[in-house]
Amino acid sequence: MQLTTISLEAPYLIYLGDVADELHAKTGMGIVYWRPERCVAQMRLPDCPVDLGLPEMSASEALAAGVKTAIVGVAPFGGTIPDQWLPQLTELAAAGIDVAAGMHTKLTDIPQLVAAADSGKSTLIDVRVPPGEIPVGHGAPRSGKRVLTIGTDCAVGKKYTALALHRELERRDIKATFRATGQTGIMIAGEGIPIDAVVADFISGAAEILSPDNDDDHWDVIEGQGSLLSPSYSGVSLGLMHGSQPDAIVLCHDADRREIDETGGNYPIPELDDVINEALLLARRTSPRCFCAGVSINTSKMSPPERDGYLSKLQRDLGLPCVDPIATGMTPIADFLLQNIQ
Amino acid sequence: MQLTTISLEAPYLIYLGDVADELHAKTGMGIVYWRPERCVAQMRLPDCPVDLGLPEMSASEALAAGVKTAIVGVAPFGGTIPDQWLPQLTELAAAGIDVAAGMHTKLTDIPQLVAAADSGKSTLIDVRVPPGEIPVGHGAPRSGKRVLTIGTDCAVGKKYTALALHRELERRDIKATFRATGQTGIMIAGEGIPIDAVVADFISGAAEILSPDNDDDHWDVIEGQGSLLSPSYSGVSLGLMHGSQPDAIVLCHDADRREIDETGGNYPIPELDDVINEALLLARRTSPRCFCAGVSINTSKMSPPERDGYLSKLQRDLGLPCVDPIATGMTPIADFLLQNIQ
Repeated sequence: MQLTTISLEAPYLIYLGDVADELHAKTGMGIVYWRPERCVAQMRLPDCPVDLGLPEMSASEALAAGVKTAIVGVAPFGGTIPDQWLPQLTELAAAGIDVAAGMHTKLTDIPQLVAAADSGKSTLIDVRVPPGEIPVGHGAPRSGKRVLTIGTDCAVGKKYTALALHRELERRDIKATFRATGQTGIMIAGEGIPIDAVVADFISGAAEILSPDNDDDHWDVIEGQGSLLSPSYSGVSLGLMHGSQPDAIVLCHDADRREIDETGGNYPIPELDDVINEALLLARRTSPRCFCAGVSINTSKMSPPERDGYLSKLQRDLGLPCVDPIATGMTPIADFLLQNIQ
Repeated sequence: MQLTTISLEAPYLIYLGDVADELHAKTGMGIVYWRPERCVAQMRLPDCPVDLGLPEMSASEALAAGVKTAIVGVAPFGGTIPDQWLPQLTELAAAGIDVAAGMHTKLTDIPQLVAAADSGKSTLIDVRVPPGEIPVGHGAPRSGKRVLTIGTDCAVGKKYTALALHRELERRDIKATFRATGQTGIMIAGEGIPIDAVVADFISGAAEILSPDNDDDHWDVIEGQGSLLSPSYSGVSLGLMHGSQPDAIVLCHDADRREIDETGGNYPIPELDDVINEALLLARRTSPRCFCAGVSINTSKMSPPERDGYLSKLQRDLGLPCVDPIATGMTPIADFLLQNIQ
C-alpha cells in the first residue's frame, strides 16, 4: 500500500440514510457485491426502503464488531449530506469509526462532523479529494504486468470490467490487484486515487504511483476513466493510460451508445477497430508491446439471440474476444490476455 | 475578457528584486519584449545587476504614473519570495498597486503582503492558481478561427512561436488574440489560464472558455503546453488540444533535442512527420478539418549554412513551411495558415 493513495480500513459499515431506492444505493450495493468480506454491518434511518442484507448495527455495536470505517453508500455523488443523516454519522465518528463519503460537499466542511471526529479520534475521508504530494510522471518502465480498461465513453463498464477481470484472475490463483481510479472503485477496493480530481500536471504521476513496481507475474488491473474520444475527459484518459504503462488494454463499450453522452450529437462513436488502433498507437508510447485483450460490452438491451449474433460478428470482425461481462463473463478475455502476454 | 480567466491590469511595473542575471530575469524581459506598451516602470534592490531599461520608480511614483500591477519578473518560478524583496513588495501593495507573481509559495500565504494589500485595497495575484468555476468541456463547435502551437517536448518554443505568429497576424491587420496557458504567457498577455494547474476533469473546459466564440475572421493564437509525446504531460496537451478545437496546429521543436527531457533516455522523439500525423489524428476529433500550418524550430546551435540546409531539407520532406522563429521569422507559416484555412 502506498502512502499517497486514499486508504479505507475494513471492515466496513455501509451507511444508507433514507436513500429512496436501489438505484441510488448502487455504491453500497457494489461494495457488498464485489467485497462482501469487507462488509459486516449496515445503518439506515427508520424509513429507508433499501436493505443490503447486512446486520443492522448501532454505532456502539459496530465498534464492538470491529468496524473501522462507515462508508456512505449512496449515489449519485454530488450534492451534500442531508441534515437528517447527520445525527447517525456524528454518532459513528464520535464512537471512533472513520466516516468516508464521495459527496460534493466535503465531510471535513461540516463542523458537527469535524467536532465528532476530533472527540472520537476518527478520520473523515472524502474520496473525491486526491492525496497530497503526487509527483510528476517520469515514464520509467516498471516491473510487473498491467491491464487497463478503456472506454468508448463514460459509464460503459470500465470499473465493472476491471473488477470482473480481477475476480477472474484471482479465481485462477493469479496474483492480481484491482487499482481504483474513481470514487466508487476506491470504496470497493479500500484504496486508490480519484484520478480525475488530480491537478492536470500530475495525472500520469498519479497513475504511476497507483500501479508501482511489482512481481513479474503480478497483474495490476487498472480501472479506466473517461475516454480518449471524449471532448470533455480525453486528457484524463491519456494521462492515465501513459502513466499506467499497460501491457494490455480491454475496450469497454455500450452496444446501445451511438455517440458520446452529453455532447449534443457532435461526437459519434467511431468503428471499434479504429478506436482500438488509435488507443494502441497512444498506449505504445509508454508500453511498446501493448495489445488489446478484448472488448467488454454492455448488451443489456438485447435479447439473448441478438446478443449472441452481435458478439459473434464483432469477434470475427475484430479478431478479439468480445463479451458481455455480466451475460457471458470475462473468461475469454482472461484467456486471451494470459495467452498473449510476453 | 472572460470572468473566469486570470486578469492583470496594465500598465505594469516590473519587479526584479536582486535577481542575479538576465537569464533569471527572462520573464520580465519577455514581458518588456512582447508587450512594451504595457510596461512603464521597473523596481529593483540597489545591488541588482539587471536593467530592463524602464524608468526606475518608487511605489508612490508608480502610483502617480498610473501603474496598476507590479509583476515579479523573475524566473525560474518555484521557490518563494526572498525576505529582502518583501519591504518593496509590501510598499507597492500598500500603495494600492496589485502584485502578481508565479512563485511556488503563494503571495496570499505571506501575511505581511496580505495585510498590505488589505490596507491598500490592492489584489495579490498568483498566476499559478487557476480561477474558480471552470466548467467541464462540452465540445460544441465554436465560431472564430484558432491555431494552437504544439511541441515535441516541453521548452521547445511553443509560447515564443505563438507570440511571434500573433505579432505577424497583427502586422497584417488581421484580428487576432494571443491566448496564454502558462504563467509567463499570462503575465505577457495580462490574461489567461494556467492550464496545467487546472483539475484534470476540467482541462478541456478551461481551454474552451479561454478561446470562446468569436468573429469568423478572428484568430485565437493559443499557447500550447507540454507534449502529446511526453509521458509526464500528455494529458494536459490532449485536453488543451481537444478543448481548443484548433483549425490549425504549428509544431514546435528544438533541433538539438533527441529525446524527451528528464525521462532518462526512455523516450526518443519520433520523426516529425509521424508526430504531425498523430497530432492531426487526435486534433480532428474536435476539429475535423485541422491541418498543420508549419514547423517552428529552435536552431540556435546551428551555423547559418547548417540551419539553411536543415530547414530546406525538412521543408521538402514535410511539404510544410519550416522556420526558426527568431532567425528566419514566422512569415512563411502565417502565409501558409491564411492560404489554407477554409
